Amino acid sequence: MSTTAENDSISAAVDVIGDRWSLLVLRGVFRGLHKFGELRDDLGIASNLLTDRLARLVEHDVLEKVPYHDRPARFEYRLTDAGRDLSPVLVAIMQWGDAYRQDPTGAPTTLVHSQCNAPVVNVTRCTECDEPLEAHQIRRADERAANT
Amino acid sequence: MSTTAENDSISAAVDVIGDRWSLLVLRGVFRGLHKFGELRDDLGIASNLLTDRLARLVEHDVLEKVPYHDRPARFEYRLTDAGRDLSPVLVAIMQWGDAYRQDPTGAPTTLVHSQCNAPVVNVTRCTECDEPLEAHQIRRADERAANT
Repeated sequence: MSTTAENDSISAAVDVIGDRWSLLVLRGVFRGLHKFGELRDDLGIASNLLTDRLARLVEHDVLEKVPYHDRPARFEYRLTDAGRDLSPVLVAIMQWGDAYRQDPTGAPTTLVHSQCNAPVVNVTRCTECDEPLEAHQIRRADERAANT
Repeated sequence: MSTTAENDSISAAVDVIGDRWSLLVLRGVFRGLHKFGELRDDLGIASNLLTDRLARLVEHDVLEKVPYHDRPARFEYRLTDAGRDLSPVLVAIMQWGDAYRQDPTGAPTTLVHSQCNAPVVNVTRCTECDEPLEAHQIRRADERAANT
């Protein structure tokens, strides 16, 4: 095979965020939970797992530890620029979950543009014709034909 | 906390795709690898792990097993509609990886619109004003203020 799993940007990204708890921790931080206890209570995650996931996300420069209290020293977790730029990943996952995985008893989460109050949508689009694209309309630049 | 991890569309989606190997298997299928051996060679994944991830993705209706040979019976794995609709998730992950996780020795993967040959981009945008949005411009409809 010419492509290998280990050296492209998807696998490199997946090494950082391709983990159920890491994605749920990020969801929490995007929703405004910044303290260890808040995240632990929200996720119902064991403290040692949360410690591990937070340390990994800090190590990979997705979150940063910001002191908010001196004695005792207390920290909260804030998104870095790289972390904030994961927003489309989370929105795309949420959108897919709303379409295919929605608990029939729950309502889909509506995200809105804070200025317009209109719903937001995650799309893959062409930078030339601006058309929203589906998988079969996308190919790698180094390929001759789409393969889906 | 008012939100809990267990009952929203992100956590439901993450239960299906929030796993390193599942995401890499999907990447392979999007790139045109449909047979067990092709995926195993591409990923360098142990057969039992690949069997497990493929079974889960079939069970969750993201992939389907399609027979392509009778005796012996042979199957390949194809994206379902739900699977194809994971394209924005993969594109968003790739884009983030290209921006923040790119192996300095590798070139970013360029995805293009097969009709225009122009690069594609994954964006979250407002359905009203069409503006591409960053995390701080997005809030949940049931919230008063953005929390990032």
